[in-house]
Amino acid sequence: MSTIGFIGLGNMGGPMAKNLLNAGHQVKVFDLVEASMASVVAEGGTANKSAADAVRGADLVISMLPASKHVEALYLGDAGLITQLDADTLIIDCSTIAPESARKVAAAAAEAGFDMIDAPVSGGVGGAVGGTLTFMVGGSSKALDIARPLLEIMGKNIFHAGDAGAGQVAKVCNNMLLAVLMTGTAEALQLGVNNGLDPAVLSEIMQKSSGGNWALEVYNPFPGVMPSAPASNDYAGGFLVDLMIKDLGLAMASALETGSSTPMGALARNLYVTHGAKGNGQIDFSSIQTSFQKQ
Amino acid sequence: MSTIGFIGLGNMGGPMAKNLLNAGHQVKVFDLVEASMASVVAEGGTANKSAADAVRGADLVISMLPASKHVEALYLGDAGLITQLDADTLIIDCSTIAPESARKVAAAAAEAGFDMIDAPVSGGVGGAVGGTLTFMVGGSSKALDIARPLLEIMGKNIFHAGDAGAGQVAKVCNNMLLAVLMTGTAEALQLGVNNGLDPAVLSEIMQKSSGGNWALEVYNPFPGVMPSAPASNDYAGGFLVDLMIKDLGLAMASALETGSSTPMGALARNLYVTHGAKGNGQIDFSSIQTSFQKQ
Amino acid sequence: MSTIGFIGLGNMGGPMAKNLLNAGHQVKVFDLVEASMASVVAEGGTANKSAADAVRGADLVISMLPASKHVEALYLGDAGLITQLDADTLIIDCSTIAPESARKVAAAAAEAGFDMIDAPVSGGVGGAVGGTLTFMVGGSSKALDIARPLLEIMGKNIFHAGDAGAGQVAKVCNNMLLAVLMTGTAEALQLGVNNGLDPAVLSEIMQKSSGGNWALEVYNPFPGVMPSAPASNDYAGGFLVDLMIKDLGLAMASALETGSSTPMGALARNLYVTHGAKGNGQIDFSSIQTSFQKQ
Amino acid sequence: MSTIGFIGLGNMGGPMAKNLLNAGHQVKVFDLVEASMASVVAEGGTANKSAADAVRGADLVISMLPASKHVEALYLGDAGLITQLDADTLIIDCSTIAPESARKVAAAAAEAGFDMIDAPVSGGVGGAVGGTLTFMVGGSSKALDIARPLLEIMGKNIFHAGDAGAGQVAKVCNNMLLAVLMTGTAEALQLGVNNGLDPAVLSEIMQKSSGGNWALEVYNPFPGVMPSAPASNDYAGGFLVDLMIKDLGLAMASALETGSSTPMGALARNLYVTHGAKGNGQIDFSSIQTSFQKQ
Repeated sequence: MSTIGFIGLGNMGGPMAKNLLNAGHQVKVFDLVEASMASVVAEGGTANKSAADAVRGADLVISMLPASKHVEALYLGDAGLITQLDADTLIIDCSTIAPESARKVAAAAAEAGFDMIDAPVSGGVGGAVGGTLTFMVGGSSKALDIARPLLEIMGKNIFHAGDAGAGQVAKVCNNMLLAVLMTGTAEALQLGVNNGLDPAVLSEIMQKSSGGNWALEVYNPFPGVMPSAPASNDYAGGFLVDLMIKDLGLAMASALETGSSTPMGALARNLYVTHGAKGNGQIDFSSIQTSFQKQ
Repeated sequence: MSTIGFIGLGNMGGPMAKNLLNAGHQVKVFDLVEASMASVVAEGGTANKSAADAVRGADLVISMLPASKHVEALYLGDAGLITQLDADTLIIDCSTIAPESARKVAAAAAEAGFDMIDAPVSGGVGGAVGGTLTFMVGGSSKALDIARPLLEIMGKNIFHAGDAGAGQVAKVCNNMLLAVLMTGTAEALQLGVNNGLDPAVLSEIMQKSSGGNWALEVYNPFPGVMPSAPASNDYAGGFLVDLMIKDLGLAMASALETGSSTPMGALARNLYVTHGAKGNGQIDFSSIQTSFQKQ
Repeated sequence: MSTIGFIGLGNMGGPMAKNLLNAGHQVKVFDLVEASMASVVAEGGTANKSAADAVRGADLVISMLPASKHVEALYLGDAGLITQLDADTLIIDCSTIAPESARKVAAAAAEAGFDMIDAPVSGGVGGAVGGTLTFMVGGSSKALDIARPLLEIMGKNIFHAGDAGAGQVAKVCNNMLLAVLMTGTAEALQLGVNNGLDPAVLSEIMQKSSGGNWALEVYNPFPGVMPSAPASNDYAGGFLVDLMIKDLGLAMASALETGSSTPMGALARNLYVTHGAKGNGQIDFSSIQTSFQKQ
Repeated sequence: MSTIGFIGLGNMGGPMAKNLLNAGHQVKVFDLVEASMASVVAEGGTANKSAADAVRGADLVISMLPASKHVEALYLGDAGLITQLDADTLIIDCSTIAPESARKVAAAAAEAGFDMIDAPVSGGVGGAVGGTLTFMVGGSSKALDIARPLLEIMGKNIFHAGDAGAGQVAKVCNNMLLAVLMTGTAEALQLGVNNGLDPAVLSEIMQKSSGGNWALEVYNPFPGVMPSAPASNDYAGGFLVDLMIKDLGLAMASALETGSSTPMGALARNLYVTHGAKGNGQIDFSSIQTSFQKQ
């Protein structure tokens, strides 16, 4: 049994913390929103008045926050957690943030003598609740070995992408590619339909051919083709357009930082921003299909 | 045993005709290039002085030509094959041409009382030689039923996409999507590598995540990741950039014809044309990866 | 005074024919729509029952039709005008059509012994009514010299772009560039406004700097900056999105035909098609500005 | 006569400082590179051992540095200039940096009681030497009024874009639009040339039509059309591709920060990065023309 300090108990962090509690660990929690904290306390967590209180005496710290600035504010600076942790505490940041930011915090942690891994997730709220998340991890193998038993409680697949920040890089690369293939799939389906083809027939052909991809396999964007997909449910739920825009923003920031050329990813971001700006931010990202339909 | 008139014996048509001969069919052949005809005659084909001679007495006609204009010239007009065929001859055009062109020829055939299917292929020269092509078929089920035994000699997968022209539509949609996902995969891999990731590790993570697609599965564009892929062999062989440009051109023409929006497909075409114009037309299309590398 | 056969009396052709009448020329007219013909007859034109009737005895033929197929149908084929014209009649086609189509008709005319120029226009209905159109002309200098006095009645600027088809090429290149710079201007203005800048101030700065272009000079897309521009009148009137989509389609077709790379033009076409598909086809093309606004 | 502290004496800052000296001002200089400082001292400047020394007793501080991080490092932090300046010193930062960064430094200055304007320039080294730069200024009118006499020594056009940071915004918007119109112009010219048109004739037509823009007017990207343009001199000199990539990066960063959609600007950035990565970083940015040529 480990003692875990868990910071950030939102839609993702809340159920993740509960899974750790259910597995028998002691979880000391903190969130700025009282109600979020109360929900985890109701399942056995210990409430704290500050992040610093929550990590006191912890073997591991797990954070799950919205963006780079929150993670930097939590760990860095004169009152940052890095100055507050007990020796040998392992830091696991599960937030999806800029690789540059992850590397910066990891470097500060290392300088202060702490191991840290970046471990952003995919799988959404459903994966968090069900304990079936995918973790993409950056950091040392040694640190990952220590974290692994906990990650396996919260998730199903754990990938070691490389050194500090590499988990974030893997996630932004994957999600940029996801945006590209979802948009390309939507275009191809609409082009077929505009030529009189049945979208289900065309989907099956492409899925078994060289156009095959994750969207055609489990997440078809054309309404009615795949009954369980968000497209067949008015694009409700799923992975929101606004979240895809956030991840594409991280990919673009990393492309700027590294001088990389990503024309398809950049176009996908702009198509998603345009789509989101027309009131579609809170529906599933496969709704990019509707961009290509005639009104 | 059927009597088949086979027009067009190039890199694809030649081996396809040979497979029909090897399966015991009588194949009457014609090609403007003597040497191409001779090669098939050497394996049992019957040479002819014209396309019209080749189709005389045939149960089925198969054509495999470079582009729309050749197919239209072969079948249409005062001396076109449609005016020369015996009653009940089934027409199978395996060329990759514009859907509009396929529909036009099929309509002319229908008016003259002939059934016709468009049956473009994927699988390349290797698939033609090995009899493992994929056929995407447009036309009536009845006509496809008649053609199927022959298609199964030449190929492994036979998809019925819909009515006349639908085979061409399915092929251009698939190949447009292929271009998009190959380019997107190349960008994502380069972004990861520019951030210090190992392309093989990143490829495996994305392939098992929501970025998964055909390129990552069997045709990785990054040199060294997949030993059998063209990328690990200096992009030799494979599916040539010039052929991808041709197929993207057909997709764009169809988008213009139907007023469709295909921003990702259009960008992919332009990136491929730019890439081809720099001397890369005769190497594998996964070489788009090199566009994203620093010199 | 010349005798002119004028075919096609729509929004553009009608007022052009009237200007020729007002200048003292005899104009024999034909249009499939009775009312369009009647309007020109009311100002002195002579009605005809067919295009062939209209061009009988004419010194010059002027045609103003919607698309390539109409122009080809008018001039080519067994009953096409080329077989009906008196010797030495000069043909002036003012339609905006594909360069390939213009070259094809001009070649057929030349073979039959007729000079032909392609002379597409810009300037819209206002320019047609006011006689202030711009003509972009392809064909021989000799033919243009003969046509010039008539073109100067209908227009203000006459550019000789080159040989047959060159007028069409110049027009599609110009309008593709126009779409690119209008879209780019709209994006830049929105980026400035999203950063708190006054669009009028930013417009003035860019117009006097290296971002200066026609849109900033006379056709600002941001509402309120330029009182006389369509943007300040709910994008009513002006140059319709649907017409820009038509011209971008001609540019893309020419890019396919010549193997040209036009990434910005292709993106502009797709943004305009997406914009038009959302119910904006019949408003001014500067309304692309609204694509970049948050709802 | 004013006493000016001038920090950053590179290709731009050096000649700007010399022009101030020539106009009779006292200029106290500092640069990390000794030789750069010596060159200005040779014309009457006073050398200093640190930036803090250079600004002691100054009426105004002018800085001209490469990027956001240098400007932030100069002014902010415990030893930043803001803590070192005499009361009432006006700060003029002429560096081209992120609007966000400019606003951050201006806010810190304001908090410490100093007025600051951001005044990035266009016009290149030639403009710096000749005193013909364009300044795009953000900050209060009052501060600009004080700065104006000095700006008028170094430049010809002075635009007031708005509050703090607005100068930077105006510059990145303008340069993004410039990249878009240069690329669009290059594409349109190549499309015309691929259709047989003379680039000079087509340039003239578009310049006088709705495609008219700054590139066609003074900076034609097609070799031979405009003898004085970089294109006619192997793209030597001018505004380097690497600098355009820097400015497009600032535009993209601002688009990310503000959630703006800039599809054309994003595509232009990616085309320029690809172009630069092929060894073209140190030639003029109008060389994007060569991207569209066949090898």
